[in-house]
Amino acid sequence: VDMNTSISLFVFSQCLWIILKLKIIIYSETVGLKPAPVIIDGIPINNLTRKVLDSQSFLSQSMNIILEDAVKKSTDVKEKVCEWRSPEELKELLDLELRDEGESESEILQRCRDTIRYSVKTTHPRFFNQLFAGMEPYSLVASVIVEALKPSLYTYEVAPVFTLVENAVLRKMMELIGWEEGGDGIFCAGGSMSNMYALNLARYHHCPDVKEHGLSAAPRLVIFTSEECHYSIAKSAALLGIGTKNVYVVASDERGKMIPSALEELIETAKKEGTIPFFVNATAGTTVLGAFDPLEEIADICEKHNIWLHVDACWGGAALMSDRHKHLLKGIHRANSVAWNPHKMLMVCLQCSAFLVRDKTSLLQDCHSSRASYLFQQDKFYDVSYDTGDKSVQCSRKPDSFKFWLMWKALGKGELKQRVDRAFAMAKYFAEQIKQREGFQLLMEPECTNVCFWYIPPSLRNLQGHPKFWKKLHTVAPAIKERMMKVGSMMVGYQTHKDRVNFFRMVLVSPQVSTEDADFVLDEMHNLGKDL
Amino acid sequence: VDMNTSISLFVFSQCLWIILKLKIIIYSETVGLKPAPVIIDGIPINNLTRKVLDSQSFLSQSMNIILEDAVKKSTDVKEKVCEWRSPEELKELLDLELRDEGESESEILQRCRDTIRYSVKTTHPRFFNQLFAGMEPYSLVASVIVEALKPSLYTYEVAPVFTLVENAVLRKMMELIGWEEGGDGIFCAGGSMSNMYALNLARYHHCPDVKEHGLSAAPRLVIFTSEECHYSIAKSAALLGIGTKNVYVVASDERGKMIPSALEELIETAKKEGTIPFFVNATAGTTVLGAFDPLEEIADICEKHNIWLHVDACWGGAALMSDRHKHLLKGIHRANSVAWNPHKMLMVCLQCSAFLVRDKTSLLQDCHSSRASYLFQQDKFYDVSYDTGDKSVQCSRKPDSFKFWLMWKALGKGELKQRVDRAFAMAKYFAEQIKQREGFQLLMEPECTNVCFWYIPPSLRNLQGHPKFWKKLHTVAPAIKERMMKVGSMMVGYQTHKDRVNFFRMVLVSPQVSTEDADFVLDEMHNLGKDL
Repeated sequence: VDMNTSISLFVFSQCLWIILKLKIIIYSETVGLKPAPVIIDGIPINNLTRKVLDSQSFLSQSMNIILEDAVKKSTDVKEKVCEWRSPEELKELLDLELRDEGESESEILQRCRDTIRYSVKTTHPRFFNQLFAGMEPYSLVASVIVEALKPSLYTYEVAPVFTLVENAVLRKMMELIGWEEGGDGIFCAGGSMSNMYALNLARYHHCPDVKEHGLSAAPRLVIFTSEECHYSIAKSAALLGIGTKNVYVVASDERGKMIPSALEELIETAKKEGTIPFFVNATAGTTVLGAFDPLEEIADICEKHNIWLHVDACWGGAALMSDRHKHLLKGIHRANSVAWNPHKMLMVCLQCSAFLVRDKTSLLQDCHSSRASYLFQQDKFYDVSYDTGDKSVQCSRKPDSFKFWLMWKALGKGELKQRVDRAFAMAKYFAEQIKQREGFQLLMEPECTNVCFWYIPPSLRNLQGHPKFWKKLHTVAPAIKERMMKVGSMMVGYQTHKDRVNFFRMVLVSPQVSTEDADFVLDEMHNLGKDL
Repeated sequence: VDMNTSISLFVFSQCLWIILKLKIIIYSETVGLKPAPVIIDGIPINNLTRKVLDSQSFLSQSMNIILEDAVKKSTDVKEKVCEWRSPEELKELLDLELRDEGESESEILQRCRDTIRYSVKTTHPRFFNQLFAGMEPYSLVASVIVEALKPSLYTYEVAPVFTLVENAVLRKMMELIGWEEGGDGIFCAGGSMSNMYALNLARYHHCPDVKEHGLSAAPRLVIFTSEECHYSIAKSAALLGIGTKNVYVVASDERGKMIPSALEELIETAKKEGTIPFFVNATAGTTVLGAFDPLEEIADICEKHNIWLHVDACWGGAALMSDRHKHLLKGIHRANSVAWNPHKMLMVCLQCSAFLVRDKTSLLQDCHSSRASYLFQQDKFYDVSYDTGDKSVQCSRKPDSFKFWLMWKALGKGELKQRVDRAFAMAKYFAEQIKQREGFQLLMEPECTNVCFWYIPPSLRNLQGHPKFWKKLHTVAPAIKERMMKVGSMMVGYQTHKDRVNFFRMVLVSPQVSTEDADFVLDEMHNLGKDL
């Protein structure tokens, strides 16, 4: 080999080397440096499965499906409220079985579409079945932020923003209640839990020993609530070991309002029986009739007898936003505690329920605390009074207040007030239409935004007063409900009430409901029920 | 005016009329027909505020921000885990006040960005502070579907898909527990609530009269749990009126496992005291040490004494997915009830907690039911056994099972198993690193995926055995924690335990954590603490 050939070979090999090196660098930069594999128990643990970046396209595709199908289409009045399938049919359609093998992303996207398709569209303008309705874009965005960030509200260090937001929202709600000196509170996983907190707090206030020693050595504690109250009061009494028989049920008047004199009589009776009355639940906006208990008179009685007054304003609390309607809750500032669900008439995404307490002596913390050493260390470097988790019975807890906060920031109290006023006006409009139509009958003038009424099919219209009338009418609402579900045109709930046979309860909440939607409900009921 | 002029004028006016009519039609089609305004109490109610369509652009803009900032950036290892601000600073930055006026959409978008920015990134690969971590794209998508659809799980008619999904997921979890004949269950708002349900169900099973009559006439009921158990057991005992003093605390061994002989002794003692032992809580995966109580031996004792056995497997239940690790829960099929949170090691978005019960005689329903007439009508047209809401203490309840279901569908049990095996392997790797490094000391070999250890700064390394050693070491972890929060490089929790001074608890969960991330934690602790 001559010199030239040697030089050529050398240059060539150097070039090859450089190219190879470059390739390695490029490769390394593309896939990340590959260190020697670390294998523990036969499992290679440095094969990073950083699925987050891999799933960017899946995430954006599914977000598009959600925006299209679960937001836009679900709220489109021209679409169905539900596509009814029986449990058996739906099981077939959905293939619910969980298997060893996973599915492809396109299959999962189809499952998202199917889930949305066969779900009830509770945000549809013709969904009137529960005490919540409508699509609230700001609180929806807030809840997606929460889902993505996965915060849990126990300590400031893990949820700084949401801790402060919760405090700000609670403070504002207390201001609306009229607690000028503030108080305390916490957001709970639904109104039932807020009511349960009230009962526990009142018990702790009345006999703090129960926390440690339990009830077995305690006297018989009794509570008072109207027959119209939410079922969570009885559930809480059972759960807390008070017992449903120690829930003394106060009579209400024909409009569904607690009768104060009946309350006082019952307290006297309970005292004569040797029991300890310690808790009165008043309801501001009952579940079925939408009645508001007379808070001032109830507060007088509670003060006189030294009994904790809780106001379950889960449904009617929204009226506090409105100068026109807040008189319905006159006296609420005298309550010791209040439950109020902004996820109802104020339309915050589910769930958003505040439990508020007037006490400022850390009763809530003292009642629920257990001072877990791994969460609530006292040697932290910041003010641990911001670690609010020990006020709760839950451990991990979602920052539901943020959904209310962001919505309020966007709309201002001004628009929230309008939302409430419009819902009340819509209920009045709907009640007027019922009065004007043949075959419809109001149970009573609505006080809140639930309107209760019967539809009387032509075949029964001449039977009024006849002994068979009520018996036959009782079957009408379930029959119409079945038909509306199967047609999917709307959803309105029905129930009995005391000696009243099945009737419909129309709930008006959302500003996305038009007068045409309200008219449609009555037209459609007649269409669906006229042959009954 | 002559004939021609007349004709011209006529044609002209006709043309004008046609044009005007067309304009009206076009206008009507554009803006929707405008009927005469309906005004109720001064409020025009047919001015539809269908904000949903108006807000399409806001929704897609905010979704982009969320995907970019709260998903992609939050999980980027090159970004900070948190941008620490004190409560006072953060209040200044966020402008939390809720006002009468709303804000513009661009201001709200900025609020979304700020919320994300100042929140802790619990999905970041260097977040090891709680028993949950990581970003799970499938369960994230599922939770966004839930937020958009706003379902509530009480009746089949309102949540058909989610009702069936919950049943399917519960069934599968029972299969993994080993309840071949099935059972019953419900998803709860967190593990504390699942444990609370267990206590209430056991009490109802033992003395069903308590539901109605309360505890004041009942004998003294006592429960048993180890000193290592989750604090929700004590909280539940307080809430249910049993009393924290009636929680008999069983000694555990040096690894944190309940000592069965100590349990049996304590049961005997309780009986001698005239109390009624009715509930034993065993923990599968304790919060701090990650210990698994010996379930077979505890089950033997419970059977012998006819006591309800509950297993709190909120944390360790994930090991049931793994052939390699499920032996840790050997005997769990003998439990009467189990709590298990797929939102922990299985990485489902918060919250996802199952309460499972072996009973098949509708104990859960009987214990919690209150038969509200407006929800649980018995004259519905479908099989009302699908209306599961009365099994719950909550009223509105989120379909958390769906997040688990969609994730499982996407990954299959195969990948979930790998996820668990990898987490255990990572914990072993991390413990090995600790043993190899100077200045680090394990509390004990990890049994689960929490690894507890001390960092001993150089200044203390020669003090071991000196009386001041532990006192000084006690201040190290809080000091390092403060520094790591302020730097924002990672988050790891610390606590004391019995007579042990402050130590770190590293929790390994997410497959998005690399060996480099694990190594980084130790490097960074040394960097932050070497001058202490």
